[in-house]
Order: sequence, then C-alpha cells, then structure tokens
Amino acid sequence: MSEALAGFRPARRTPAGPVPLDRALHRVPAAPVAAPDALPGFARSTVDGYAVRAADTYGVSDGVPGYLQVTGAVLMGAQPTVTVGPGTAVSMPTGGVLPPGADAVVMIEYTQQVMPGTVEVVRPVAPGEGVVRADEDAAPGAELVPAGRPLRAQDLAMLAAAGVTTVSAHARPRVTIFSTGDEVVPPETATLRPGQVRDATAVALAALVADAGGEPAVSGIVPDDAQALETALRAALPASDLIVVSAGSSVGARDETASVVGRLGTIWCHGLAVKPGKPTLLAECDGVPVIGLPGNPRSALVVFRLLGVPLVRLVGGCTAPPPEAVVRARLARDLPSAAGRLDVVQVKLADGVATPVFGLSALLSVLTTADGYVIIPEEATGLDAGTEVDVTIYR
Amino acid sequence: MSEALAGFRPARRTPAGPVPLDRALHRVPAAPVAAPDALPGFARSTVDGYAVRAADTYGVSDGVPGYLQVTGAVLMGAQPTVTVGPGTAVSMPTGGVLPPGADAVVMIEYTQQVMPGTVEVVRPVAPGEGVVRADEDAAPGAELVPAGRPLRAQDLAMLAAAGVTTVSAHARPRVTIFSTGDEVVPPETATLRPGQVRDATAVALAALVADAGGEPAVSGIVPDDAQALETALRAALPASDLIVVSAGSSVGARDETASVVGRLGTIWCHGLAVKPGKPTLLAECDGVPVIGLPGNPRSALVVFRLLGVPLVRLVGGCTAPPPEAVVRARLARDLPSAAGRLDVVQVKLADGVATPVFGLSALLSVLTTADGYVIIPEEATGLDAGTEVDVTIYR
Repeated sequence: MSEALAGFRPARRTPAGPVPLDRALHRVPAAPVAAPDALPGFARSTVDGYAVRAADTYGVSDGVPGYLQVTGAVLMGAQPTVTVGPGTAVSMPTGGVLPPGADAVVMIEYTQQVMPGTVEVVRPVAPGEGVVRADEDAAPGAELVPAGRPLRAQDLAMLAAAGVTTVSAHARPRVTIFSTGDEVVPPETATLRPGQVRDATAVALAALVADAGGEPAVSGIVPDDAQALETALRAALPASDLIVVSAGSSVGARDETASVVGRLGTIWCHGLAVKPGKPTLLAECDGVPVIGLPGNPRSALVVFRLLGVPLVRLVGGCTAPPPEAVVRARLARDLPSAAGRLDVVQVKLADGVATPVFGLSALLSVLTTADGYVIIPEEATGLDAGTEVDVTIYR
Repeated sequence: MSEALAGFRPARRTPAGPVPLDRALHRVPAAPVAAPDALPGFARSTVDGYAVRAADTYGVSDGVPGYLQVTGAVLMGAQPTVTVGPGTAVSMPTGGVLPPGADAVVMIEYTQQVMPGTVEVVRPVAPGEGVVRADEDAAPGAELVPAGRPLRAQDLAMLAAAGVTTVSAHARPRVTIFSTGDEVVPPETATLRPGQVRDATAVALAALVADAGGEPAVSGIVPDDAQALETALRAALPASDLIVVSAGSSVGARDETASVVGRLGTIWCHGLAVKPGKPTLLAECDGVPVIGLPGNPRSALVVFRLLGVPLVRLVGGCTAPPPEAVVRARLARDLPSAAGRLDVVQVKLADGVATPVFGLSALLSVLTTADGYVIIPEEATGLDAGTEVDVTIYR
C-alpha cells in the first residue's frame, strides 16, 4: 500500500493558464510570482502620531518632555507637502507617507498639544520606530508566492497588494468518473427493481475531486461488459487528465475491468494491501492515469481519499498539498490488524476519545456515522485501547 | 475577545431552498433527511460464493466436507429465479440478491465444485454470514444526514443510495464586502501615486467567505467620508446577510465607521482584546450583522478568520462547523503575551517545530510566510519555548 501511495507517480501535469485573482483561491501557481515593485512602495507610518527626527526625542520623558513645532499634517493617500527639519514635527495618520526629513513617528499617546503649533513629547523614539520601510513587505523581485502550493486567502491579498491580478496556474485536472455494474442505476431512479442499487459512488467521487482541485465529469454507468467499458474508456481518454472507474463488485467484474484497462495501457498494480480497498487498480493508458476502485461505495471512497486525491493534486501541479484536518484522540478500545496490511478504521469522536465504528465494508452508514478515520500502518499488528492516535477528520 | 466570539449571536439565518445533490457538497441541510425506504432494500451477498441454509453447513471442515446440490445462479441486478431448499445451494455474485430460503452465503474460497451440479463446502457459516440485511445500511425513516452539518462526500453517497437527489439546504449567506480609505485603490491600478495602496483585503475576505460557505459580493472602495459610507451601507443592507467593512486604518477613520454604523443600528462591541485586531467592530443593522475590521490587511484577515468565518457559518445555518486543520508542534522560542489579551501568533512549521514569524501588523508578508497560527489565550502571560501548541494550518 505504501508502495502504491509513494510509487505511482505518473508524469502527466495539466498545462498552465492565466487565472484572474478573484477566482484563484486554492489554484496552483505554475511558477513563483515575484514582486514587480517594492511594497508598500513608500515609508509608511504604522501609528497615528507625529513624524519627527528621532534625535529630537532623545532623553525626553514624562518629567522632562521635549517640545516640537508642528509644521503641517500628512493626509491619507497623498504626497506630504512639508519636510521635517530639526525641532519640527508633522501630524501623521496611520498609513500615511513619512515626510522627507523624518525618520520615525511618535505615537499620539505619547504626545500632547500644549498650544496651537507646539507638541509636547514624553517618550523618545529610535530611528525607524513607527514606520514601515518602503520595501519591508516585499523587495522588488522577492517571491510573493511559490509554485506548486495552492493559493491561500493571504496569498491573494499579497498579490493584490502588488498589483498582480492574474496568476499563471495549472488547469484543474479533468477527472472522468465511470461507474460500472449491471445492478447499478442512476440516483434519480425512484423505484428499484429487486437487486438494483443506485449509484452512490459517482456523486461522492465528484465531490472529492472538486475538493482536491479537479474538475469532475460524471460520465455515467457502464454495464458489466468488456466491450462497452473499452469503448467508454477509449472515448474518455482524449479529454481526461485522470480516469476513475468504480469497478463491479464481483470478482468477475473486477477482473474484466483489469483486462480492459490492460488492453488500453499498462497496469501498475492490481490489488493493494489495504482494508477496505483490496481490489484497487492503478494503471496508465495513453499517458492518462487510471484508477479502478472497489465496487462497494464505502471501499471506493476510502481508497479514493488515500490514492485518488493525491493523484488529482499531483496531476494538477500541486507539490505542497494542504494538510488534512487531524485531531489527536485516545482509542476507546483495542483495534486488531493484520501485519502487512494497512487498515483504515472509521471512528466517532467525543471528548478526545475515538470510538471505532464497525460494520461490513458494504455499509455506507459506517462512513456517514464516522467523524474521521484512523490509519493502522502496515507494520503494526493492532493498537491498544488508550493509545493516542491521529484522527483525520472528514469535512 | 472570548466574549465577543461566544456572545455575538445574531438571530439571522438564511432561508432554506432545494439544492441538487451534485451541487450540495459542503451545503448545510436545513432539516434532517430521513431514509424513504430500507437500504439496501434487499438482503444482499457481501461475497462471491454460494447462498445456502446455514444449518446445512454445520460441522463441515476440510476433513469432513459437506456436499450441496447447486440448483441455479443469481445474476447481478436481477431477482433470483430459484429458491434454496435443504441440501441445495445457489451460486452468488457479491452484491446479488439472496434467494428465498437461503440465510447465509459461503465464500467461494471455502468451496469447490467437485462435479457439475455439486459443490463441496469445507467451512460452516452462521445464519446472516456473508449477507447484508435489507435494512442494515438504513431502516425506513432513519436519519441519513443531520441538519446543520455541512454535507461531506459520503453524505452525498448515502443520499444518492437512498434516491434523495435534492436536499433542502440553507441559502449561502450573501456577504457584502466594503473597503474604505482615501488611500485605497483597486488592485488593478498599475501605477500607484505616493501614499496610495492597493486594496489587498477585499479579494482575501471574499476567498475566506467562499470557503466558509458564503457568497461574497466585493462592493468596492468607499472614501473616508461618513455620508458616502452611510449611503453605501444603506444600499447594501436589503441584499446582504452579513456586511464586512475593512475600516480606515487611522483612529479618525475607524471612529467614523463606528459612528456611521451606530446611526444605522446597534453596536454590540467596538474594540477587542486581541492582537492583532484591537479596533474590531461588531454590530447589527436592520437584522444584518455588520463587522468592522481593522484597516491593515493582516489584522483584518486574522480577525475575520476568528470572528467572521464563524459568523458566516452561523448565519448560514451551520451548527456543526467542520474542524480546522490543526497540527501539534513545539514552540521554537518563548512567546510573551499580555494577560487579558488574546494573541494570534503567526508561525512557520518544520519537523514538528513552530517558529514564530514576527513583524509589524502592517506587513502582509508575515501572513504569507506563515504556515499557520498559534493562539495564546487571554489568561496566559506567554508560552515557554518547547511548549506543545496547536498550530491551526492555513489552507
């Protein structure tokens, strides 16, 4: 399983294209973005107060205040019209441009206007105090955002501040989703005939794809028929960056999926040491990665979170995926596990205790009841009650 | 600060409306959804094998196999055409309908076809083994998803399985975002005049709103003018479920925002014991919650994550917000903090160590450099180097 997770690294990457900033959240920059100019671009006051020469304030205190002549005021968003000379001060709003001659700003809290045109200063300031340097937020050419890491809210803010309103980002990977099985019917089916089940997997896979930054295309239900599946896959390859097939649930149907995929490309592995999720297929056809998922929805979703989501990100150029939401909790009971097999155990969380939710792998209710899951690694033979575990939270 | 977080609970909730399942990820159900019918709806095999009467297998073993007459086969998605009587078995695919008369399925691994029409069984099965009951995933009327919790991928799967293809969900809260300040110009501005800064906050707030399930409306830059702000707010109220104003950065501009908001409604608090973010305003105007944020983008984004995101969720009917991504790490150095004030400290993460990123609150680069943040609660007077802390990760 670890081998499959780490080893299957298809070369495919989506191309880069321009994305406007207001649609760029979570998009993946294809190249680092550098600051075109210094930011903020001018020395800027960080407080309300008076622009001064710091030397004029040395030694002042509550007991021995200094007195400066106020020669003017800086307005927000405007070039200062006055210069600060020895013994003078200029009134400043937070965010205003530091006037020529000044090297610090005294906070208004440490001043008092004793008479019109004169301000009393009771605290000394050092040069640079109360001021952001012109290039303190970014020097020209500094990296504003790296390539490969999905853009976060503050990255958008920084790009906006720098006037970068379009980013070159990887296209969202187009992920084609097929369901297979003679028993599978669309969710819209009002009344089921005996033996039929509605397609539960496709809509959930599409959701996971979208959350991973992909563009899902739910492409319908293919009957358990090799020719029909081959035709569907061939037709989907040109417009897909990744293909996901939730295979039939019986051994025969799974083998059929594998043999069809084998005819179209190279099977990288078939069968994983993971529970649930053993009958998983990884392949590459015409440069398009293909994932064959177990037939039952619960196993399909568990495996897709572990293998499919990282693949969607990889193909979409994401080299620094955002971390999952993880909570530490103590296990409510012993969890047995076979060595050599990775176990994904669903748990409910309450008051720092993780209680396993057991049930057949055919049951979706095990997943909907769970708040998250615990992974028992391949080398472990189980975990004792009371062990601290990382619970990855569903969201 | 805690008081502000816990205490400001405006009554406004967005109305419910129908949402198709394939657009319902992360949407908030307005009412619990119950299963219309039993799921899977029929007793279903969980393995490939033979449907049998369990009693016919009692006592069998490798040494003393049992022999059953194979009277037919169940096909996927079809009603069985045979009944299982004493001494007989019916071939079953995983997921097939259990035929009448059978109460268990023997896995194919524990059988062997010894001659046409006869199967050898070497392991006994108990009644119910190898079978999912007709109502085991959901009984009719069982709650499939609760109200108030954003829908996760597996919830969509469960609803699809039940044939529920439309969910009644709260409308996304419409969040109107204003920037204010004579110095603030649109991000598209190619060349800044001295003292001007581009609007960095609005695009980032819009991103946080969208991630919290809201529908942001970036509504432009209002000059530092009470009448202009009042006109803009009045016009926005009827079509907003929440209004966010990133106030001017100077004390005067902030006071002006407060006095305008005070004329339009009730100020709940003005000024928070949080760093950065002190000059935050919470109010309610005509039943619409209004948040006034600090003028500098970094403080605005920090405060909006703490106060704004929970408010967007609350107004959108979300009573069980998804947890943040949190990582445990050790502090690289001492962190001082004033008691009675909540401190939000930006940190970089590497190898389980959280290194604080310091810098003036006017610097956005502190936020873009950080991987996450640590909260020093109001009652603490700082944290020692080496302390284990929860780092909330940006994503």
